[in-house]
Amino acid sequence: MKVVIIGSGNVATHLGMALKNTGCIILEVFSRQMHNAECLAAMLEARAGTDLSKINREADLYLLSVSDASISAVAAALPPLKGVVAHTAGSIGMEELERFPLHGVLYPFQTFTKEKEVDFKTVPVLYEGNRSASRKMLNEVALSISGKVQKASGARRKALHVAAVFACNFVNHLYTLANDLMEKEGLDFSLLEPLIRETTQKALTMKPADAQTGPARRGDRLVSQAHLETLEAYPAQHDVYALLSESIFRYFRTKDELYDQL
Amino acid sequence: MKVVIIGSGNVATHLGMALKNTGCIILEVFSRQMHNAECLAAMLEARAGTDLSKINREADLYLLSVSDASISAVAAALPPLKGVVAHTAGSIGMEELERFPLHGVLYPFQTFTKEKEVDFKTVPVLYEGNRSASRKMLNEVALSISGKVQKASGARRKALHVAAVFACNFVNHLYTLANDLMEKEGLDFSLLEPLIRETTQKALTMKPADAQTGPARRGDRLVSQAHLETLEAYPAQHDVYALLSESIFRYFRTKDELYDQL
Repeated sequence: MKVVIIGSGNVATHLGMALKNTGCIILEVFSRQMHNAECLAAMLEARAGTDLSKINREADLYLLSVSDASISAVAAALPPLKGVVAHTAGSIGMEELERFPLHGVLYPFQTFTKEKEVDFKTVPVLYEGNRSASRKMLNEVALSISGKVQKASGARRKALHVAAVFACNFVNHLYTLANDLMEKEGLDFSLLEPLIRETTQKALTMKPADAQTGPARRGDRLVSQAHLETLEAYPAQHDVYALLSESIFRYFRTKDELYDQL
Repeated sequence: MKVVIIGSGNVATHLGMALKNTGCIILEVFSRQMHNAECLAAMLEARAGTDLSKINREADLYLLSVSDASISAVAAALPPLKGVVAHTAGSIGMEELERFPLHGVLYPFQTFTKEKEVDFKTVPVLYEGNRSASRKMLNEVALSISGKVQKASGARRKALHVAAVFACNFVNHLYTLANDLMEKEGLDFSLLEPLIRETTQKALTMKPADAQTGPARRGDRLVSQAHLETLEAYPAQHDVYALLSESIFRYFRTKDELYDQL
């Protein structure tokens, strides 16, 4: 299978390496900056380019791993292509690529950092295609790199992306707020490590709502109030504490009221 | 060492078992409900009781593992004691126990569920005592059950407890909100597992602020806005998404502005 990759960021890098490792030939890597294209192309033993009008037209698969906002501009800049053209974004519909007769989406569901290796076999890959030929090819490509492949519509993919923002991006921000608070109080963040590991482990082995503990879960407004007073010198932490405590109170009050009515 | 435990909840259970395993003799377990006292007392081969005025006065250590709000009432109900009297709460000062000549705090920093075993050796234990005799004994007790022992004042312990609310209770609530969203869209929460594990792993190996990714980190308000529209039917998720996105925007805008001024 011959592949062209457009983009040179975190997803392009990890996806390109995974495809190369399964025996795909990466023909070309395109990027706005020649330097970036060359860096990734060297890793993938591919040609580097910046001018999309000169793209190789003989590839079986064209992967657009660019920022969400650039997908439509890149699609418009490409010449007509008979291979499958797919983007890798969570929240963008496949319609953005509808000028290509075979198009779709290949969405690897993981957070990537260039420097950190990822075992792609464990990364869920979601795909969709506009026709059976594009679906079949994207399914095969996904199965060659991952053990967790699912077909998913744009709406489901978007819901999954939003859920990921909660479970990854927002969770990391809470770690940041906790870390900053501890630093200012002269405490080492590593003290939290056993607690963080146990919290993650519990959420993955029981229903997260059943694993909920803490003052807000117990309805203990005295402790919450005392914590808010402690946080008066930390406005970012204070606002997040107030909202999330209230959200937990409300979540379980509603549940408890429902039980009372049964 | 002879120990009396007052309380029969999650902390009393795990701490009692850890102390028994290191060779302490648990003389008695007290609880408001005789049944609860008997259950834990059977595990710890101790006598069970409900009437604090009849407490054994020969123990070396009295551990109060009761709810934060009950500590002062339990302390008032106890007869004079010459052993060390310590509570196990994160956000309560040791002054609540000042009527006892030797008093202090022994705070195990972990989330406990009765049914789930915990390796106490990895649990950070924070202690403080009012005099060198109580400090020395609580330090020794802590070292006998845990490999991570630290002396900590009430202010530091409270800050640590607040940080734990962010990194454990609030994180779990975000998992809950993500889980409910996925259930309603017919998606399996286990799809998030690799992402959750990677997020945790990154936060523990690099500075959490440096691991931040996602639309808000990129300042991509278009994607955030689209996600908020997706969440219009989910008011709890909508409010939390709006606040945490704004918190991330602000966190990095402030940082970026600081860099610009350098």
